[in-house]
Parts: sequence; C-alpha cells; structure tokens
Amino acid sequence: MPQAIGYAAQAADKELEYFEFERRDPTAEDVEIEIEYCGVCHSDLHQARNEWGGTVFPCVPGHEIVGKVTRVGSKVSKFKVGDTVGVGCMVDSCGHCHSCDEGHEQYCENGFVGTYNGEDKHLGGVTFGGYSNRITVKEGFVLKVSDKLDLAGVAPLLCAGITTYSPLRHWGVTKGHKVGVVGLGGLGHMAVKIASAMGAEVVLFTTSPGKVDDGKRLGADHVVISKDEEAMKEWTNSLDFILNTVAAPHDLDAYLSLLRLDGTMCLVGVPAEHHPSPAVFNLIAKRRSLAGSLIGGIAETQEMLDFCAEHGITSDIEMIAMDEINVAYERMLKSDVKYRFVIDMATLKQK
Amino acid sequence: MPQAIGYAAQAADKELEYFEFERRDPTAEDVEIEIEYCGVCHSDLHQARNEWGGTVFPCVPGHEIVGKVTRVGSKVSKFKVGDTVGVGCMVDSCGHCHSCDEGHEQYCENGFVGTYNGEDKHLGGVTFGGYSNRITVKEGFVLKVSDKLDLAGVAPLLCAGITTYSPLRHWGVTKGHKVGVVGLGGLGHMAVKIASAMGAEVVLFTTSPGKVDDGKRLGADHVVISKDEEAMKEWTNSLDFILNTVAAPHDLDAYLSLLRLDGTMCLVGVPAEHHPSPAVFNLIAKRRSLAGSLIGGIAETQEMLDFCAEHGITSDIEMIAMDEINVAYERMLKSDVKYRFVIDMATLKQK
Repeated sequence: MPQAIGYAAQAADKELEYFEFERRDPTAEDVEIEIEYCGVCHSDLHQARNEWGGTVFPCVPGHEIVGKVTRVGSKVSKFKVGDTVGVGCMVDSCGHCHSCDEGHEQYCENGFVGTYNGEDKHLGGVTFGGYSNRITVKEGFVLKVSDKLDLAGVAPLLCAGITTYSPLRHWGVTKGHKVGVVGLGGLGHMAVKIASAMGAEVVLFTTSPGKVDDGKRLGADHVVISKDEEAMKEWTNSLDFILNTVAAPHDLDAYLSLLRLDGTMCLVGVPAEHHPSPAVFNLIAKRRSLAGSLIGGIAETQEMLDFCAEHGITSDIEMIAMDEINVAYERMLKSDVKYRFVIDMATLKQK
Repeated sequence: MPQAIGYAAQAADKELEYFEFERRDPTAEDVEIEIEYCGVCHSDLHQARNEWGGTVFPCVPGHEIVGKVTRVGSKVSKFKVGDTVGVGCMVDSCGHCHSCDEGHEQYCENGFVGTYNGEDKHLGGVTFGGYSNRITVKEGFVLKVSDKLDLAGVAPLLCAGITTYSPLRHWGVTKGHKVGVVGLGGLGHMAVKIASAMGAEVVLFTTSPGKVDDGKRLGADHVVISKDEEAMKEWTNSLDFILNTVAAPHDLDAYLSLLRLDGTMCLVGVPAEHHPSPAVFNLIAKRRSLAGSLIGGIAETQEMLDFCAEHGITSDIEMIAMDEINVAYERMLKSDVKYRFVIDMATLKQK
C-alpha cells in the first residue's frame, strides 16, 4: 500500500491524474495530517502547466489545506491527534535570517520551501502538495483551525485569505479608512470580506456589471464598474489604500489616481506580462506608493485564521470531487467560479 | 522706470531675453524682496521651452530665490526690512484644504500657485519668477535664510534641497540606514549631502566613472557604477531607501532589487516618456514600494534650511551672469555643470 495517493501533472501539457507517492513518516518535530479539503488556487494551474517555468514533474499542486492530525512527533507540543489544522503555501524556511527572525517566513532570505514544487529536504526531489490524502509538515508551519467554521470554506483562507489579510493589516486598514479592492475573484472576494470586517468603507472595482449585487452581498459599500470613466472619477484622490488583485495587465494609473495623499496601492497578482508602465507624475503628485505583497508569515496566518473565526469569515466555494480537477481548471480560466473551487478529499480513492 | 526687470522667454522657440514687467506693491500680508541670487533648475528650461505644455508667454522662470527684504506689509510679523530670505517653488496655495491644513501646501487639493507660470491672483495673467531683480510674495511663503551660509549656494536649496530633503525625512532616513541615491546631478548631489548629514550610509549610483571621486567628496560612502552588473549585485536586498533623481527613462528594476524587505524607492524626476514598466514580482518578493514625492511644504522647507545651516550644507554651484542664461541652458542639457548654475542678479541691469 502506498504511503500517499493524490493527483499529479506528469508534464506541462498533461491533465492531472491519479498518482501514488511517498510521504515521510513524522520526525520528532512533524505533524501528520489527513487532508479533508484542499482549495484550488490559480497558481496551482500556472505551476502544473509550467507557466512560470521551473516546475518539476510529476507535480502534485495544492497549498490551501485543511485536515485532521493523525500522528505527531515526540517534540510536537502545539498539536495532538484529532486536532483540526491547516497548511498554506509554505512548509519550511531557513529559520535564521532577518526575515524569519521577524516572523516574515514568506520573505525568507534563503527562500522558503513551497508546499509543492519546493525542495524536499527529507526525501529529496520536490515537495508534493495538498491534492492528496495526507501530508507531513514541520510543526512550526501547521496552523490551528477553529471547528466553528465550515472547514471546506476555511481551506482557501490559507492562501487567498492570508494574501489579502496581510497587506490590509500591514498598511493599517481600519475603521474610518476608504479601501479600494480591484477585481472580484478568489482573492478579491476575500479582500472585500476581510476589509469590511476590519471596519473600512470598501469600494469594489470590477469590469463586470453582473457582479454588483454579489459585491454588495460580500460586504462592499460601493461597487464601481471600472470601465465607467465618470464613475471612476468620483473616487479621485479619495482612497486611503487599494488592494489590487488583478493579475492580467491593466492600466494602473486609473487606480493610482484614486488614492489620496500618501495612499498606497498594493499589488498581489503577478501578471504574465508587465502592466503598462504607470505615470511617475501620478506617484509624485500625491506622494503615492505602488507596492506588492506576498502571502503572509506563519504567525500572521494564525492571526488571520483567528480573525476569520471571530468574524465568521470563510471563502465562498464550489465543492468538487478530485477527479473533476481538470474541468475545474478550464472553468477557472474563464473565471467561472464563485469564488474558489475546493476539493473534497473524501472523493480521492486508491486505485 | 519699470517696477521690475528680468529675463523672459517670449515663445517656446525663443532664447531668453531682457524683459520689463510689473510687480505688485506689497499688500498688508506681503513681503517685497530684492533678489540677489536665483538657481537654475532643469524645470525652468522645460517650461521656458513649453516641453510640459501649458506655458504662458512671456515666461520669466526661476524658483530658487534668495534675497533681502526691501518692504513689508502692515500685517507682516515674521520679517523686517534687511532680512535675508528665500522663496521656492510656491508663492501661494488655497490654505483651507486637508493638505494645506497639514502643512503640505505642495499637495494643495486646489493647486498651489507656482512661483512662475502660476495664476497671478493679484495682477491677472501668470506669475513671474526669480530671473528678475525683485519679487513680491505673501509672507507665509517666504523662508528665513541664515546669513551663516554662502547665499549663492543656498539658492538651489529652495528647490533641489527641499525636493530631496522632504522624501529623505518622510521615509525616516536616519543613522543606521543604508540609503541609495541614483544620479549625481543638481538633485542627486544635494541628496548625497543631506542623507549623509542625516547619518545614513550613502551609496551613490552613477553611470559616470568620472564622478566617483566627486561622489565621495560630497559624502557618499560608496559609489557604484550602475552599468557594472556585478557591482550592482553586491547591493541586492540591502538598501532601506533609495532616492532616484534621474528623470530620463531607465530600468527601475535594477534599483528596486537592491531594496531590502519593506524598502521604498522614491522617484523625484518626471521623465518625458514612461520608464520601462517595473516587474511586479520585484515589488511583491520583498514587499517593496515605488513612490514619488513633490518638493516639500513650507514648514518643511524652513526645517530643511535650518538643517542645512546647522550642518553647513549648500549646493555646489557655478555662478553665471544673467546674460549667460541661454548658454547655461545648453550646457545643462549636456549635464555640463557641477552641480547647479546660479544667476548673480547683480549682473542684471536696466536697459
């Protein structure tokens, strides 16, 4: 019997299919987890198809993991068998650089170990992700998950949730702030929920008139159709912060000009090709900043999960069976999902 | 006898020449100044040649003004006849918007009044700048200048000095910081002096090997030839802040990648055409920011002048006579000046 089963891409041009592989037995510092749910992130698709380069095949994607602890190593103190836990985009980092010291493992100066396609320091080769029945992870990279929330809806918090929570928190979003969210997809819908829960007045920008009602249901105070130049103009010089979740190249100036003095627009999507270059004058005229942010640190991810439990926040999801993943990828390419696919791992069976 | 004489461009394609015009008599709130020195800023040339559009002719440039008070209005309390004073890029602002309230007149939401080519609310038409023998300015936009310093070298502080001081101060540059300065021209040489006086370790980036010695003389701890890729790489992820003074379009990524976690690169030059678009990943990978900054507020300009007096900082200048201005413009276009032309206004005579 194999140690683990899952779904893998065997090559960039192949669909994902059933795959058997090894997981390590827990070391003294490890937690073994039976995976119950795994969210489907757009970066899973990018990497399964080697669109960013550097993918090692076979590739088992998945970094939005929720499950139950099945075994713990002798030195593990924070978790016990039966606990509900989560794993996000990282399973290790160097632990001794300036960034790690400050709890910013995502900015580890020696490179964090990705949950999949990272360097596996135990078994060699690369790490395998959450599209599988179990995973073994170093205690320090395992998160506590509240049983109060719907666990399938919690899974996307481990990437989409923290990727939006971290910059909103870092730039101090709070009550009294006007915050723009650009794009209503997996990241954008989490940003709307979280910024709203932080007390901000949330302005959602979307190209789709069909998303107005949904935007308001999710917590946006205002929804602006970004193609409507007059509607855009009304927000000139008014926003304290903008979280821009759109990865497709687009006109950044249209949003930068909406920031007030000292406002920041933070990008969390990486476009395959550069955005059109923003006008320097748009930055200079109001001392505005254009910034970027990458997921979040482990302590901050725990803080985010606790925040979401306190505010009853989960992702809006569409549950799929493991063998529906290839169809889900095609639908994701058409933005045909509200707002995140989550794999029910009970549907993954040994063949 | 005319109220004022100076040098003006009569059209975008004409050289500057002798010009007679009106200055208002001081109102109760005004200070009248006999101009002794006026610095020559690159934006003078841009506007005299209408390269940014919107120039009204005749145009009398000049916004780096130092002189002596000759008359004061009845309500003026901060200045008396004989005081040494300065005037920078602004001579008025709305005074009641959020930015003005916070002392950021340069970001006035209703638009500040430029020292030249601004709307003249007293005489109609546009304001005339410092390439002239006298000027009348609202008390609130007049700065005190220490007599301790060489006054010709003080003139460029009113634009080049505050444009670099303001972002260095805003982003909290201090002892223990590693600060990059990109470009060694009028702005760059002030940035090196000021950042060094603030206690930072200063790394100057220049394309010119011939500027290494000068960079060090001005206060740079290190001078890096930016075309030397290996030398650039040594500074990867190391700088807390970069002040980029280069207006010509150039590769911003080469500098963004030198910033450490949470570092900011601030642009103070406006290129005629966009810079190549920076890579979003370079922002995201270390939560870096690309920002812009515009001159500085009045209170901050006074703070800068006091800081420079305390630290004995003036601009390195080359003095010219008023009738040498057209030759100076041509030399400025070739960066043939170390590091600022200043007009000795004693050379301006009535014809």
